[in-house]
This record gives sequence, C-alpha cells and structure tokens, in this order.
Amino acid sequence: MDFKDLCRARYSVRAYRPDCIPADKLEYIKECTRLAPSAVNKQPWKFILCTSDEDRRLLHQCYDRDWFREAPAYVLVCENRNEAWTRRYDDKNHADIDVAIAIEHLCLAAAEQGLGTCWVCNFRVQLCRELFSLPDEWYPAAIIPVGYPATGNIPEKTRKPMGDVWTER
Amino acid sequence: MDFKDLCRARYSVRAYRPDCIPADKLEYIKECTRLAPSAVNKQPWKFILCTSDEDRRLLHQCYDRDWFREAPAYVLVCENRNEAWTRRYDDKNHADIDVAIAIEHLCLAAAEQGLGTCWVCNFRVQLCRELFSLPDEWYPAAIIPVGYPATGNIPEKTRKPMGDVWTER
Repeated sequence: MDFKDLCRARYSVRAYRPDCIPADKLEYIKECTRLAPSAVNKQPWKFILCTSDEDRRLLHQCYDRDWFREAPAYVLVCENRNEAWTRRYDDKNHADIDVAIAIEHLCLAAAEQGLGTCWVCNFRVQLCRELFSLPDEWYPAAIIPVGYPATGNIPEKTRKPMGDVWTER
Repeated sequence: MDFKDLCRARYSVRAYRPDCIPADKLEYIKECTRLAPSAVNKQPWKFILCTSDEDRRLLHQCYDRDWFREAPAYVLVCENRNEAWTRRYDDKNHADIDVAIAIEHLCLAAAEQGLGTCWVCNFRVQLCRELFSLPDEWYPAAIIPVGYPATGNIPEKTRKPMGDVWTER
C-alpha cells in the first residue's frame, strides 16, 4: 500500500478484538517508532509496552472509558523535557513535538500491519505518573492502545477541504 | 516500499537540486498532509507553499543558512492555538502536537516520492510573522524545504538502541 493509502487506512480505533499481537508485527512497529526523527536527534522518549492485566487495570484508572478496556496491548509514551532540544531564543521545548512524530510512526506502522491504534491524550497524567512510578523527568504524553480492530470497516475521513488548509502564494 | 523502508528513506536533506517539483507529486504530498489526524479532529493548521524568489528571500531572512537557499519550494506551516483542542483539566494546548503529526505526514509522503525535506524550527518566528503578514492567531511552527536531494545517498540513521527506548513491563 502506498503512503496515501496508509494515511487513509489509519483511523482512531475504539473497538478491539482481544487477540494478541504477533511478535513480528510488534517488532516492526517498535522499529518504525525507533527510527522517528526528533529535533537535533535527541530522541527524548520512552515507550512502555503494557500487556498484563494489572497494567491494563492501572491504565484504565487513568482513562476510564469502556472501550479502553479491550485492547491486548497499550503503549505508554513518555517524554523527557530535560533531554529534548530547546530553542535558545525563546526556550521553546520540543519534547511534545518529537513525541508526536514518534507516536504517528507507531500508529502508521500498526495500520500497515492491519492493527488499530488510538491516540489518547485526555487521561489523568498525574495519576499515571504515580501508578507507574515514573521518575520525575519522565512525563506521560499519551497512551496508545494497539490491537486488531473489531470491525474491518475503515471510516471515511472528515477533513477540511484542500483549499482551506493549503495556500500558494 | 513498506513503511519501515520509508522511515529509513526519510532524512534531513540539506542540499537540493533546483529542479521544480512535478505537480502530481506535490498534490500527493498535499493530500497526505491534509489526511493527518489531530486532537478532536480540529485540524488547526495552514500550509503555505512558497516558490517565488521573493518568498524565498523572505524565508532566508528568517533562517539564514546557505543550504537553505537552494530548495525549489518551501512550506511555511502555521498553527492556530485558538482552533486547537485544549485538555480541560490543565489547559494543555495540542496545536504543536497536531502540527507535528501533519508535518511528518508531509515529510514521509515527500520521501516516498523521491523528494527531500528538512524540519526547520530554529528560525526567527516573530520576523516570519511580520514578513508574511500573518494574522495574530496564526503561529509559524516550522518551515519545510522540499525538493530533490542533491545526492542519492541516504545516510545511516543514528538512533538509540531498541532496549533504551522500548521497555516491556
């Protein structure tokens, strides 16, 4: 599938089958994520793969939605703002941007492998820190469930028209 | 090429041939970018394609590097923080994250088409606002040169080892 088809195939999956993810698919996803670029190549990230019932229970405490219980695996993505590149003249830290790139690599790689994902940012960050005993310098940026979508229907994308987002001067 | 090969093929290109970008490749890149996901599907972005000598002169004022003169096209990516999703409990605005995703779609789509790109964030944001007469709500997040790489050599990636970035609990 070409990249445009991959962009169309990736969507926010909120219903998963419980089947485990094959090891080769998981390795593929990990490698595509690891290869992501970051500002000044700082790679200020950590990806914590959670598959145990206990971890899933903890994650569910951080994001209490019924659909969020079902996935066979979750990636807790953490960023280290002290490691990230900071633009000197205005101190803009690029950890959020770096991690966003890597997460999208993860989601696209998963979609190519027939697996679903969903960006979850609206979780309880402070509680997550505590439940997972994260060191102070690691900020939990997102939780990404990964698993086979419960249905094979890829929804149509609703996006702004081309002329609203791209302009030529 | 599969997505892993695409991740390997994308690199920060800092030497371009002056050749114009074929229209079909440009449309493809625009579409892949338009399809990018964003928090709550807000799509708080604008992509300004700059190809004129005058625009290139202005962009070069914002980022004064010799290599940055050469590309046939540049995308000035702007974000609107008022349009972006904000996490309610801590007011975290997601415009930077959304735009990062879309820019990576742009860079990956370009790489697939044999074109090079480079994320440039270390430019003079305030000067850019003024030179391009950007309305107050549009913040220039990055400038992405686009063009054929001057050489066909894809450098090896230097990345942290898998075990340093991925952990399993």
